[in-house]
Amino acid sequence: MFYLIGLGLCDEKDITIKGLEAIKGCSRVYLEAYTSILMIEQSKLEEFYGKTLIVADRDTVETDSDAILDGADQVDVALLIVGDPFGATTHADILLRARARGIPTEVIHNASIMNAVGACGLQLYNFGQAVSLVFFTENWKPDSFYDRVAENRRLGMHTLLLLDIKVKEQSEENLARGRKIYEPPRYMSIPLAISQLCEVEATRKEGILDPESTLAISMSRVGGGSQQRIVAGTLSQLGKQDPEVYGPPLHSLIIVGKRLHPLEVEYANSFAIDETWKRVAKDVYGVSDE
Amino acid sequence: MFYLIGLGLCDEKDITIKGLEAIKGCSRVYLEAYTSILMIEQSKLEEFYGKTLIVADRDTVETDSDAILDGADQVDVALLIVGDPFGATTHADILLRARARGIPTEVIHNASIMNAVGACGLQLYNFGQAVSLVFFTENWKPDSFYDRVAENRRLGMHTLLLLDIKVKEQSEENLARGRKIYEPPRYMSIPLAISQLCEVEATRKEGILDPESTLAISMSRVGGGSQQRIVAGTLSQLGKQDPEVYGPPLHSLIIVGKRLHPLEVEYANSFAIDETWKRVAKDVYGVSDE
Repeated sequence: MFYLIGLGLCDEKDITIKGLEAIKGCSRVYLEAYTSILMIEQSKLEEFYGKTLIVADRDTVETDSDAILDGADQVDVALLIVGDPFGATTHADILLRARARGIPTEVIHNASIMNAVGACGLQLYNFGQAVSLVFFTENWKPDSFYDRVAENRRLGMHTLLLLDIKVKEQSEENLARGRKIYEPPRYMSIPLAISQLCEVEATRKEGILDPESTLAISMSRVGGGSQQRIVAGTLSQLGKQDPEVYGPPLHSLIIVGKRLHPLEVEYANSFAIDETWKRVAKDVYGVSDE
Repeated sequence: MFYLIGLGLCDEKDITIKGLEAIKGCSRVYLEAYTSILMIEQSKLEEFYGKTLIVADRDTVETDSDAILDGADQVDVALLIVGDPFGATTHADILLRARARGIPTEVIHNASIMNAVGACGLQLYNFGQAVSLVFFTENWKPDSFYDRVAENRRLGMHTLLLLDIKVKEQSEENLARGRKIYEPPRYMSIPLAISQLCEVEATRKEGILDPESTLAISMSRVGGGSQQRIVAGTLSQLGKQDPEVYGPPLHSLIIVGKRLHPLEVEYANSFAIDETWKRVAKDVYGVSDE
């Protein structure tokens, strides 16, 4: 059996009983380590599971997945995914390859940012499409995310922005020269995300992400108990906070749409920087919590 | 401490280690039993958790939540939610009440249909807003869901339709007479959902849900291992299947949008009724998996 197992959001205890039991019976256990990260060390996972983990980077999962699947028709093999297994295309791909080889598969689900985002108090069914925001470089500032956010905003819907993660990436020079030297991991922070949004708004000028009149909610380490941090305010306000307010990764950012409910305003008000949250909700979004 | 704990999708082993540990330390444990259901009996949950569960119906959670929270500043109390705690408005409400009473709270996330829907092979970030479909009655056939699906379809996005659940509901007569007599639970099935969609399409005639040219995917008992069933085809095809194909509840239905990726077509093809899936994907959606 080939298992795809979601680990949930934060630490070794976010796995389900079903997932843990499956791991205990596996001959080989791979840990996918490039689309998201947990808040703890690999050694802690290994100790808790009682298994040695084989780290599977992008190369392994995308171009060498047959190595992961080898023997899974005879013994149990698991690939562990932070969050839920269906966050990224590559994991549907490995299931297709398993099927093509006649290997039985089982998926064990878990929480991911796609549903845990509800912790900010906004209703999940008021969210439109989720959008990825990638690291800008000097020469590459892709702004198609702006059109996606605009589509959601025109319908009044909220947008979850998934902030870029770079793990085991090569520099352009090392890539060009074929040198397998990797850069340190990078996780996009809320301040950087907001500066990129404002840069694109300044160019596009369609008012989709106007810093003063757009409400947003930042989420750091969702599901991390006392380490979770949620901050609500205008884009401008969030961009001016001390970076320490947001703390270590992972960070996500929500752009609030006009289909805002008074209970949503009230709930998120407990995360608000100041009374600007309620004032903009009332004056710009036309929603009062009273 | 007041805990809101997600139970995941199917059975007693879908809870996380963190969630189970919290339950074990609680003085009172409530089970929310009206927004979704597990696939197993309450007694099995109680045996596994080693706790007696107090069933919390809609009345208790929405109008008598102070009774749930009583004493949670002194001892630990948990409210268990099928799926993730942030599927329904009411659970944000009880957290607000807890905060107002100075009771510390913690949310323990889990999988819900909102992210596990990815198991059908469609990418989560190609989904627009999720939409609820309620049971029609002779005199009440609300069709605002049609406008929501239309908004998604115009942008090419997929729509997750959440099918109605009626648990501990009173008949109109019993409600009017104030008699606390409850109807047997009802869960909307795929065939009923499709007949309602087609009824509204026949009235509205905007082509948003044309039975022959609209691709859809049904999901039954998602996350239920060998009991999970996924079927892909046109609305017309899905509507004509023997109801036994879909089996017992819970059912969900996905309306496929035009922003369809070849890998999505290929992955879902393994769930297809016949070659119509690929043909309509190619001829109507303009997407080939080759």
